[in-house]
Amino acid sequence: MEDYARAIDLDQLERWPGFFDEKCIYKVTSRENVEAGYPFGVLFADSRGMLTDRVRSLREANIYEGQVYRHLMGRPFIMSMDNGLVQAETSFLILRTMRTGEMSTFAAGVYQDRVRIADGRASFVERVVVCDSSRVDTLLALPL
Amino acid sequence: MEDYARAIDLDQLERWPGFFDEKCIYKVTSRENVEAGYPFGVLFADSRGMLTDRVRSLREANIYEGQVYRHLMGRPFIMSMDNGLVQAETSFLILRTMRTGEMSTFAAGVYQDRVRIADGRASFVERVVVCDSSRVDTLLALPL
Amino acid sequence: MEDYARAIDLDQLERWPGFFDEKCIYKVTSRENVEAGYPFGVLFADSRGMLTDRVRSLREANIYEGQVYRHLMGRPFIMSMDNGLVQAETSFLILRTMRTGEMSTFAAGVYQDRVRIADGRASFVERVVVCDSSRVDTLLALPL
Repeated sequence: MEDYARAIDLDQLERWPGFFDEKCIYKVTSRENVEAGYPFGVLFADSRGMLTDRVRSLREANIYEGQVYRHLMGRPFIMSMDNGLVQAETSFLILRTMRTGEMSTFAAGVYQDRVRIADGRASFVERVVVCDSSRVDTLLALPL
Repeated sequence: MEDYARAIDLDQLERWPGFFDEKCIYKVTSRENVEAGYPFGVLFADSRGMLTDRVRSLREANIYEGQVYRHLMGRPFIMSMDNGLVQAETSFLILRTMRTGEMSTFAAGVYQDRVRIADGRASFVERVVVCDSSRVDTLLALPL
Repeated sequence: MEDYARAIDLDQLERWPGFFDEKCIYKVTSRENVEAGYPFGVLFADSRGMLTDRVRSLREANIYEGQVYRHLMGRPFIMSMDNGLVQAETSFLILRTMRTGEMSTFAAGVYQDRVRIADGRASFVERVVVCDSSRVDTLLALPL
């Protein structure tokens, strides 16, 4: 959890896909979307390869250049643990700081995770990022 | 602590009184009030029944509809532990997101708690919510 | 970590130098500074005595009067542990509330710490505060 946040906050995006299983779900959506029952959000990937592609296109677009992020997270709330599969929800807040020095709350919400624990290592089988605000989609550039 | 925050953030307000003892103190005040020695704050309840009434009136007023909250908390700082009674202080930050997507820092401050641990269950004997800002009172709608 | 934050948030600044070794490094800098390879930041002290002087001048200047701070921190990310010396990095967010009630994000960034654990007590050998924003320097008054 912490290292995932560090990879993004330290602009080590190339490490990001490595937190996921080869076959995985990564989805960014909004609370409003979830409540309305819409299955898809603003971003959807179902393999580690898609995440790698995403990083490549972010690097090419160079959007990430002028801004840095800072994750603050609550304690994971464990929903279930079964056969090495942990289901947990964790509140998050992401601050964005522009090169100009301007800071703002970029996103807040909850990570809904399914994590596989095997051989002393944890990896995401599924990470659904539910943002409190539905405005985030128009700004969305980097992984959350 | 986390589940209390979840009950509010997930709009499961009906669960909120259940975190308190039948006979309890719940108080919302400001740092300025406390420093000035004023005993009462902007909100005061001394029984679980009063909290249940509060939820009912919030539901009727329907104020809560257009906004969601997100708690982020620090680690509890344990002041004392004695005979199953824990005294702790925990910093908090509450973000509010309006249906329009606008996010803002709604409140920040410290929870001053007295928690009873009995039969493997924790309940609030007293929760005093000391907000850093005294402006919070005019906006106050939901439990903090 | 938590008590350090409390000392500042509760305006008990006189306790602040006591978290450091007699011979220590305390530095406040920005991410941009670090990336550009500048060795010094906006604030630098290399002894506990310098920190005590700093508190004295803050009290005399009385800058601190009209504002309170609130630290929220992530879980420390342990980089290494060796012979009672722990190296860790911890994300932080500091909110500032003015007496008028106005709240804002004052600073966010990461604590890069070297902590000595001896005789059941932890003290900072080095605390480098790397702020995400380089704007913080012009506003800087109190310890971060």
